[in-house]
Amino acid sequence: MNYIKAFAPATVANVACGFDIFGFAIQEPGDTVEIRRRDEPGIVIADITGDEGRLPRSAEKNAVTVVMLHLLKHLGRTDFGCEVVLHKNMPLGSGMGSSAASAVAGVVALNELLGSPLSRKDLLPFAMEGERIASGSAHADNVGPSLLGGFVVIRSYTPLDIFSVPVPEDLYCTLVHPDIEINTKDARYILRNEVSLKNTIAQMGNVAGLVTGLMKSDYELISRSMVDVIIEPVRSILIPSFNEVKKAAIDNGALGCSISGSGPSMFALSRGIENATKAGEAMVRTFAEVGIDATMHLSGINDGGARVLESY
Amino acid sequence: MNYIKAFAPATVANVACGFDIFGFAIQEPGDTVEIRRRDEPGIVIADITGDEGRLPRSAEKNAVTVVMLHLLKHLGRTDFGCEVVLHKNMPLGSGMGSSAASAVAGVVALNELLGSPLSRKDLLPFAMEGERIASGSAHADNVGPSLLGGFVVIRSYTPLDIFSVPVPEDLYCTLVHPDIEINTKDARYILRNEVSLKNTIAQMGNVAGLVTGLMKSDYELISRSMVDVIIEPVRSILIPSFNEVKKAAIDNGALGCSISGSGPSMFALSRGIENATKAGEAMVRTFAEVGIDATMHLSGINDGGARVLESY
Repeated sequence: MNYIKAFAPATVANVACGFDIFGFAIQEPGDTVEIRRRDEPGIVIADITGDEGRLPRSAEKNAVTVVMLHLLKHLGRTDFGCEVVLHKNMPLGSGMGSSAASAVAGVVALNELLGSPLSRKDLLPFAMEGERIASGSAHADNVGPSLLGGFVVIRSYTPLDIFSVPVPEDLYCTLVHPDIEINTKDARYILRNEVSLKNTIAQMGNVAGLVTGLMKSDYELISRSMVDVIIEPVRSILIPSFNEVKKAAIDNGALGCSISGSGPSMFALSRGIENATKAGEAMVRTFAEVGIDATMHLSGINDGGARVLESY
Repeated sequence: MNYIKAFAPATVANVACGFDIFGFAIQEPGDTVEIRRRDEPGIVIADITGDEGRLPRSAEKNAVTVVMLHLLKHLGRTDFGCEVVLHKNMPLGSGMGSSAASAVAGVVALNELLGSPLSRKDLLPFAMEGERIASGSAHADNVGPSLLGGFVVIRSYTPLDIFSVPVPEDLYCTLVHPDIEINTKDARYILRNEVSLKNTIAQMGNVAGLVTGLMKSDYELISRSMVDVIIEPVRSILIPSFNEVKKAAIDNGALGCSISGSGPSMFALSRGIENATKAGEAMVRTFAEVGIDATMHLSGINDGGARVLESY
């Protein structure tokens, strides 16, 4: 094989109550990475599209190629060489797991081109390294679902313990991206390091409720559990009209609505595509009322994660 | 009907990672309440057995009869009168949900004698009032499972939102009660009011893991998730040889081991009755090594909760 094209989906991390432990993948959009074998060893970036020239073109500095270099080193394949083209199909710093999707597409493509020496799950630590470069911390709540698909729980980071939770078939996500930017590092910086025991207990109750609701297909319980008393009250101040947009989603049929990752994108979960559409349209309208353009993505939950699109 | 005898089981609250939100009922032991209609209005305590004379004999002061009086008042049945006999079959202040079992048996018996005007779930707030009297806070993690059976999650207190999580059939509980006493109010008092964000995230991961493990019958995940980084490190100092007893349980086949409620009882969960027995015997032996007598109760998870034993 000389050429691989791989796709990795956008993801919603945190999912209201599950800061740093919950994430799920959606079907579209996602980033695409093409890699082509070359004779000389080492990785070079041939092109990046869709980033408006903002991502580093040096293989040692771009998260996608850095994780590929890590993987090559781990496999003892420093003799290997390839050219990389990255197609960004979502905005940077959007809260849609943009950096995670790129890194995941990169490691999946490279692993495939090398004859799949590692399993999907074994690729996770490499993709996480990309997050460390992009956002300053090697979190897994975007790369986990982008790589594996579905709704993912990261139970523990040391050691890494990640598992999937089945979701009801009729669950849809509306992801709305307002045309403003939040730096992930800033979004993390404004969080308090201490949480009251009372809020910890409330959040634990919602975590248990959301997992149970998803596994039992209990939409009412999912709805009641999509409450974040710890992170959302702090981070939502970075998103203009957050409360109004959230209210618009819920008033228009969403089960719940919160910040996607560290924002500024907001997501809603709904039962059925009709509710998801109505909720999303209301969210976009509400952003428009304060002069903010917003893009809506409507999707079921992605159940396969990253995939190889083409190879020869 | 003139006479009801009702049983309510002992319970394990918190269940390692689920402080104030998780609890499950075991099959035995449990408290029994007998009530007998009398002509005069009002409730009188005819007898209490098994408490070594420690519980109040006045109906206005004993948690069991106080919750019954609340229920009568709510139903507008202040004309009603009965005599109560309470049989305590577990020690007070044991961490086995002793006060909860008594209160639950009381409200279940009274509701039955009145022709079941309320559903099981509707009795919960009344039983919770008994906890307020016994321990200073109206928590539901003992009364919930004692009343409803099974593994119970209290997602929220305001409003009260409680639901059940199915458990694997082969899951057994070993409850070991060392002959020392801890006051529930003290056990609550020593807790810190603030939790680090890091520990909150770790605990949330374990909450999600335990619920998923129970629902998927994934014993390994149950085992990895029975970790409490918030409460156990503080409360365990009140239990002599806590770390050794816990280690003995796990070394002898338990999936996990922690404090039952606010202690001093400790519980282990195991796959299969053999592991549960071995773990429990090791726990009792380890307490004996420091001169503490301990009683072991081995039981499956109770799936029906409180029940009427006799009526005529």
